[in-house]
Amino acid sequence: MKKMGGAGMKKYFLILLVALFALSGYAFGAKKSGIEKADSKKCYQCHEEIKALKEGSKHAKLDCGQCHGSLSEHLGDPDTKPTTNLDLDNCGRCHKDQYDSYFEVNYHKRAKKEKATPDGRAPLLDKLLAGHGFTKEHAEPRSHPYMLIDHITVDRAYGGRFQYKNWADITKYGKAWDILVDTNKTLPESAKAANPTCIQCKSSDFVMKWAYLGEKNPKAKWDRTSNVFDVIKDAQNPVGCIHCHDPHSAKGRIIRDALIQAVQRDGDRPYSKNNDKNALDVKEFRGYRKIGLLKKNDSVLMCAQCHVEYACNPGFEKDDFNKKIGFNDPRTNIFPWKNVFDVLKFYDEINFRDYRHPVTEANLIKFQHPEAETFMGSKHERAGATCADCHMAKTKNKAGKVYTSHYVVSPRENIKGTCLKCHKDWTEKQAIYTIDSVKNYIKGKIRKSEYWLAQFIDKFEKAKKMGVSEDVLKEARKQHDIAHAHWEWWTAENSDGFHNPDQARQSLATSIEASKKGIEILEKAIKEKSAQK
Amino acid sequence: MKKMGGAGMKKYFLILLVALFALSGYAFGAKKSGIEKADSKKCYQCHEEIKALKEGSKHAKLDCGQCHGSLSEHLGDPDTKPTTNLDLDNCGRCHKDQYDSYFEVNYHKRAKKEKATPDGRAPLLDKLLAGHGFTKEHAEPRSHPYMLIDHITVDRAYGGRFQYKNWADITKYGKAWDILVDTNKTLPESAKAANPTCIQCKSSDFVMKWAYLGEKNPKAKWDRTSNVFDVIKDAQNPVGCIHCHDPHSAKGRIIRDALIQAVQRDGDRPYSKNNDKNALDVKEFRGYRKIGLLKKNDSVLMCAQCHVEYACNPGFEKDDFNKKIGFNDPRTNIFPWKNVFDVLKFYDEINFRDYRHPVTEANLIKFQHPEAETFMGSKHERAGATCADCHMAKTKNKAGKVYTSHYVVSPRENIKGTCLKCHKDWTEKQAIYTIDSVKNYIKGKIRKSEYWLAQFIDKFEKAKKMGVSEDVLKEARKQHDIAHAHWEWWTAENSDGFHNPDQARQSLATSIEASKKGIEILEKAIKEKSAQK
Amino acid sequence: MKKMGGAGMKKYFLILLVALFALSGYAFGAKKSGIEKADSKKCYQCHEEIKALKEGSKHAKLDCGQCHGSLSEHLGDPDTKPTTNLDLDNCGRCHKDQYDSYFEVNYHKRAKKEKATPDGRAPLLDKLLAGHGFTKEHAEPRSHPYMLIDHITVDRAYGGRFQYKNWADITKYGKAWDILVDTNKTLPESAKAANPTCIQCKSSDFVMKWAYLGEKNPKAKWDRTSNVFDVIKDAQNPVGCIHCHDPHSAKGRIIRDALIQAVQRDGDRPYSKNNDKNALDVKEFRGYRKIGLLKKNDSVLMCAQCHVEYACNPGFEKDDFNKKIGFNDPRTNIFPWKNVFDVLKFYDEINFRDYRHPVTEANLIKFQHPEAETFMGSKHERAGATCADCHMAKTKNKAGKVYTSHYVVSPRENIKGTCLKCHKDWTEKQAIYTIDSVKNYIKGKIRKSEYWLAQFIDKFEKAKKMGVSEDVLKEARKQHDIAHAHWEWWTAENSDGFHNPDQARQSLATSIEASKKGIEILEKAIKEKSAQK
Repeated sequence: MKKMGGAGMKKYFLILLVALFALSGYAFGAKKSGIEKADSKKCYQCHEEIKALKEGSKHAKLDCGQCHGSLSEHLGDPDTKPTTNLDLDNCGRCHKDQYDSYFEVNYHKRAKKEKATPDGRAPLLDKLLAGHGFTKEHAEPRSHPYMLIDHITVDRAYGGRFQYKNWADITKYGKAWDILVDTNKTLPESAKAANPTCIQCKSSDFVMKWAYLGEKNPKAKWDRTSNVFDVIKDAQNPVGCIHCHDPHSAKGRIIRDALIQAVQRDGDRPYSKNNDKNALDVKEFRGYRKIGLLKKNDSVLMCAQCHVEYACNPGFEKDDFNKKIGFNDPRTNIFPWKNVFDVLKFYDEINFRDYRHPVTEANLIKFQHPEAETFMGSKHERAGATCADCHMAKTKNKAGKVYTSHYVVSPRENIKGTCLKCHKDWTEKQAIYTIDSVKNYIKGKIRKSEYWLAQFIDKFEKAKKMGVSEDVLKEARKQHDIAHAHWEWWTAENSDGFHNPDQARQSLATSIEASKKGIEILEKAIKEKSAQK
Repeated sequence: MKKMGGAGMKKYFLILLVALFALSGYAFGAKKSGIEKADSKKCYQCHEEIKALKEGSKHAKLDCGQCHGSLSEHLGDPDTKPTTNLDLDNCGRCHKDQYDSYFEVNYHKRAKKEKATPDGRAPLLDKLLAGHGFTKEHAEPRSHPYMLIDHITVDRAYGGRFQYKNWADITKYGKAWDILVDTNKTLPESAKAANPTCIQCKSSDFVMKWAYLGEKNPKAKWDRTSNVFDVIKDAQNPVGCIHCHDPHSAKGRIIRDALIQAVQRDGDRPYSKNNDKNALDVKEFRGYRKIGLLKKNDSVLMCAQCHVEYACNPGFEKDDFNKKIGFNDPRTNIFPWKNVFDVLKFYDEINFRDYRHPVTEANLIKFQHPEAETFMGSKHERAGATCADCHMAKTKNKAGKVYTSHYVVSPRENIKGTCLKCHKDWTEKQAIYTIDSVKNYIKGKIRKSEYWLAQFIDKFEKAKKMGVSEDVLKEARKQHDIAHAHWEWWTAENSDGFHNPDQARQSLATSIEASKKGIEILEKAIKEKSAQK
Repeated sequence: MKKMGGAGMKKYFLILLVALFALSGYAFGAKKSGIEKADSKKCYQCHEEIKALKEGSKHAKLDCGQCHGSLSEHLGDPDTKPTTNLDLDNCGRCHKDQYDSYFEVNYHKRAKKEKATPDGRAPLLDKLLAGHGFTKEHAEPRSHPYMLIDHITVDRAYGGRFQYKNWADITKYGKAWDILVDTNKTLPESAKAANPTCIQCKSSDFVMKWAYLGEKNPKAKWDRTSNVFDVIKDAQNPVGCIHCHDPHSAKGRIIRDALIQAVQRDGDRPYSKNNDKNALDVKEFRGYRKIGLLKKNDSVLMCAQCHVEYACNPGFEKDDFNKKIGFNDPRTNIFPWKNVFDVLKFYDEINFRDYRHPVTEANLIKFQHPEAETFMGSKHERAGATCADCHMAKTKNKAGKVYTSHYVVSPRENIKGTCLKCHKDWTEKQAIYTIDSVKNYIKGKIRKSEYWLAQFIDKFEKAKKMGVSEDVLKEARKQHDIAHAHWEWWTAENSDGFHNPDQARQSLATSIEASKKGIEILEKAIKEKSAQK
């Protein structure tokens, strides 16, 4: 079923139909709907791990045929694998409110708003990230339903090869390849920086085709080293229900492999006194996959499957750009699960960097979107808040039933349902004023850290041209590593520091101090050099 | 009659009066209204070309005295020329809806929004167009009624000599010299870059005072070489009805001379398979003027009289800045009528450039506002859309009669009347979202092309200082010519690339590639130079 | 009483209580409210100057105990000083509308909007004011109730030592130290640039603790040389009623010492033909303080107590950075009371500069917020307007009584009550359009002056590196002084030039011309230097 953005009446009619159909499904038998009936007991004879999950759960009574097909063939010949329906609307038949809200769109967040512009999040990005794929296109994120499509079409991922069939489709979502086209052409001023690992945060379609940590495995169709152009064509849906919800046990879960690894290593709240290394009940599936069941729903871990800093790119050793680290290396699928003050140390320990600045030749880290880590240790975390409290408000449907909205969005879109639940003395105006004010402060600091980093890079270029010694340049590069990390982290995360303003301020000051120290080192050497002439 | 922006009740009362008066005009005789009655047949005896136009047309019954005065004197002595009423309200007496809508103002588009600012259309303009008059003031356009006034008062046109009598008049329009004053002083940090040709797109007042292509002619008061300060004082009205509508035949027409020439040379749709070189029925008037009658109304050509790239400045030969090209040369009034990929070739062929960058000394073209050319070959053009479909919505007046709004404005001001006529599955929200998203994408690319062009200019300065050879600089200048054209075109046109996003993307990438190639050429030479030291 | 931003019902209830209480106060006696009754006649026996003010005034019948405490002790022993209640709500008991409106907040003006950002007021500030405290944080102003709190918490004033107890309090106002906390820590990337003089514009709390001009005096607790960290802890309230209104005579007054001095020196309207050097009736109090009573209320002088350029920082002699000028010198508390074209001459005459640019080593002035001076000589001033006409609209309360709103705010927040009172032919839309358009024009010019000043600084750095002679650099520095003053003035004042657009334009052009002249001087020397090599 192709879902379009501009649903209106048609959409409601469709939903009504689906609902009627779902109600009547069992009675009429499943043929027409493509759902086979299956006797769970037969399935459980072999699939004990499923039985353990399913029995006694809210999904206990769901027929296996609800999600799996070709069951009779499979029962006849176990080597004939059954199919699995990963479409989000399969869950949406019953979880209508959650499903519908997931596909709501925040029309304030237009598509393709480039960050490397004066009014974007990183005005000086083209200089500060020179040569990196992100300089080809780095647009602000928009609503969840677009995540896969935006990944496929961004100019830095697949060389501009995949395009909307029509610009007029830019509000549409649904099956990616109904909307997009493979032009088979590469565009100029684009990059091909996508990789199979990073897709694991853009779609849940690979849940059964991807071994734990993306290792090669005969049971998994794709692995970290697969041709990403082939992989992406196999993706149709954005990250969906099964990323966070176990379909058998109806419990919360984690499937993003590197997070399972990180929580088992460092715990679920590494900066809290309530940190729990056993937060996940990790199940192995048929020797190649793992799922981490949550004892109780925890949106922080659920969201942290994607909203974290993670390595997924090929890289090189910290101090040697020529010692390459390829996709075969497990360091290309790993979560540091650290805050900004500890993250470089983590990468030092695993001896990894993934970006070299062309002017300074410093070996650096390009961060992803560490919203979970910036939340760690924040006032809101200490007060017991979770992602869902601010981004997924409890909402009443038309029948008056309360559900968790899966329209994941800035709290400013629903101040009453989020901020004002705790800040009871605030008006909506005051809440928005407060949010903006905190962001203003941090945005000001981000601008300053950019300014100084740019000054450092310019100074470095001058020093190089004047023939300043490699020893001095090396010293300066160390400062670049620090200054870069403490700037870029805050442009990569999407809260403008709101998740943790005090940490953001401290970190950005650290960036500025490192840039200034680097400039000082270089200026001293430049002066000495000048004096020699 | 002085028209004010804030009309309200007063305006409607006035219009009513005018309408009543118009209806009664014939009965009472014309004395009081300044309209003489004239017997067309007498006029036709000499003016056969007018007869041919007028007879059988919707205006056939209009008395010549409706627009012309001093007719009895003229009939008595043919050397005494009759007067012609060019005021827009003369047409507005009958075409009330069109007239009123023409004078609507888009209050979202404030006056004097400088483009050379971080949130403007060309943040780096002061560097990229260094030394050019446009660096003195380059404000975003506002509604049509202001076009002449804005031209007269902009700091780059007349040295700041002409000013509003009062800043409080900035919402007013009407006769220019009722609102403005000649201070007889030149302001510092201003330029005097206006010329008689460029005024032909700001006012229709010169229709009978300007020979074809602005050549010198005893019948024409002004020509390309006239003193522009004298010319401008003779202008009172913005471009009006008669620019696009022939008053005798009541047919659509073109009067902008360089467009008549361009269409006869290249056709009406040079990038379409339906291109027609005979789209205009060109009439010559008394040996000095031409009008191009349209077989049927075509807003693309009507708008293209102004919304195009055109040369009107003095210049110099492509490869020799010292071989000047003055206003006496016809190349100072010409339309390339080409898209961005062909436009430089056109200027090569006529051996013309009009701007030299002070840092690189590259000979370049400063573009005007090529909205027609960016539309050429676009998806919307191929689908048969015209300018009016998106910018001049069919509108119902209070009596329920549909007319073409002459409030020429962004479609986002009237989504229902424009976008949604074809994109029937869109909501208004989605239309605006789509417009903004496409623009976001292109604006991002424009920023990137600016960044790289600025990098190129800085590198050039360094190379010059290091004494890099003239041969190398010459090679680099060729890249500047390309990089500049493929950047500036998109800041000069007013749709942010929306008219043709795919072409915009390709062109802006061409700019970036040329800048980078230029930088590479220079860096190589700089390194060699350094090694020699 | 701690006032919170989000008052709502609670606030009105409180106000009602206060009002009832005020009405009943005399009857019940003052004990409960902390108000002692005192026999004025007894007080007048010693305090003749108070008698002279109070008798016959609107406040004649107010008991001294209304504002002063410990009166019986004082009467018993004159050496025991009575207390004075400086809290704003003491006046608010009777002047409820004025009091309530003073504490209104403009929620459009978010807190902590940094000016040194691309969309801020001074995008290139970090380069142009390099090394100055204002580069640490320079946020746009917000509503009056926050003035003291914002001063205390800004990163450039007290090294980041004083912070909100909680970011969630950023909408709160009231007693500063109820909301803020002394962390006793200095933050990195902050400055400690506050001084006792500048606090005189942030609070009225020191009216009796500060001698005229901040000189040392045994009767005054604080003076210009006091430790500012001690001083600030003694401040609780923002500038309040008594800054502009004499509590004894109920007349308008001036207490900001440097303005009293300036008006006596230069008059109340130094650029008007109606200038009056005797506009103030200056009273001396007990040999250490002065107040300037206004013959009639004049909001221009009232507001000019703070909204002016003033020196309060330590500095150095104009031509010798090493000849320091400390807080003991009266030049650290002085108002030039001049427009931008005369202000540098004033500072030349008193031989003072307070900022040296680290790149050019030019001795410069960092301006404050000269809104009064930019208004001087403007069209609005010549038309007889005052600050209150545009910023403090006459307003009707619920009972229909007209009062002067003390919600001091941009006229765009109340167009009908301000602009349209005189511009009767405007609509609200047109008024806002006009305001924005004028501001757009000047903002464009400010951006240009920044661009050229930045170009100058970069060129200076190159010239220095090339070893250009000190004589040349000295010549260039003179241009920096001019260029800087004529740029910074307009970023420091808060109307974006709207107070006087023609002067702003002329001044900003002066800045650009000086920058260009400086560049020319340097380029000539660089070329000569290159030729020598």
